[in-house]
Amino acid sequence: MTEKDSAPVARTVLQQCLQARLQVKPAEKTSEAQFVQIDRGMVIYICFFKGATDDILPKMVSTLLNLRLSESPSGKMVSVLDLPGSLLIVPQATLGGKAKGRAMQYHNNVGKEDGLRLYGAFVSLCEQELTAAGVTVKHGTYGNRQVLKLDTNGPYTHLMEF
Amino acid sequence: MTEKDSAPVARTVLQQCLQARLQVKPAEKTSEAQFVQIDRGMVIYICFFKGATDDILPKMVSTLLNLRLSESPSGKMVSVLDLPGSLLIVPQATLGGKAKGRAMQYHNNVGKEDGLRLYGAFVSLCEQELTAAGVTVKHGTYGNRQVLKLDTNGPYTHLMEF
Repeated sequence: MTEKDSAPVARTVLQQCLQARLQVKPAEKTSEAQFVQIDRGMVIYICFFKGATDDILPKMVSTLLNLRLSESPSGKMVSVLDLPGSLLIVPQATLGGKAKGRAMQYHNNVGKEDGLRLYGAFVSLCEQELTAAGVTVKHGTYGNRQVLKLDTNGPYTHLMEF
Repeated sequence: MTEKDSAPVARTVLQQCLQARLQVKPAEKTSEAQFVQIDRGMVIYICFFKGATDDILPKMVSTLLNLRLSESPSGKMVSVLDLPGSLLIVPQATLGGKAKGRAMQYHNNVGKEDGLRLYGAFVSLCEQELTAAGVTVKHGTYGNRQVLKLDTNGPYTHLMEF
């Protein structure tokens, strides 16, 4: 799946966690910041590139939820569905960065409107798959700063491109 | 730097942090677990692939320490050297994973002996660069489970391959 000849249209980084907390609404004058939280499960950082379409989403979701990226209590590598674990989805446009000199550029990232739609559809598909399994899906707000706190027993960081 | 035609020989994932804590020695019968910790700065997850040689290390270190991957207090993107921030280096063999069916395979990862040498030399080079700047470098133990706790104001996750 990382072996395709054509350039990828989506990049994900996966980390397993014991607990993860993400801000979904910053503090304002009259309101405190709002957070979502999961316990044991997987954090998906996700970024879509130019050319990404809704067609790729079912394959992406099926792959990410079924790949053996998490450690079971017995030490065996299992999928987040098999664990079963919760999911925290974090929009992360910086993943599309390419270095030019000392600066990072993000010219290959999908436009905001398409990005928002693809991200929303990705989250919905994950929710469909995981709610059936009795598992929690939480997610960040597209376009916001992703204030994240992560506690792991080893993040087992993986990269998957689609 | 991610634009090379040839296959990369090293993969790094970069996250900025407010604080990060990493286990460097697991608990044993007669001793408690040992940890290292940094405050504001950058976490480098690193994995070497087959074909990696010491020649690439100076370029890698110079690139990672000088790229504008961190946010300054004023909101400008600056390098970890300019911040100045601390560095936590985490060996992360899982970054070399490729999906085969539902399993992850790590056939392209460098062998243990070479990996240990490259990792040690990478850490040393970072220490040389950053100690001059009065900045802390901490790192995980190669081959161990990387029990990590991370607190961010937005991880700004980046991928850099070499």
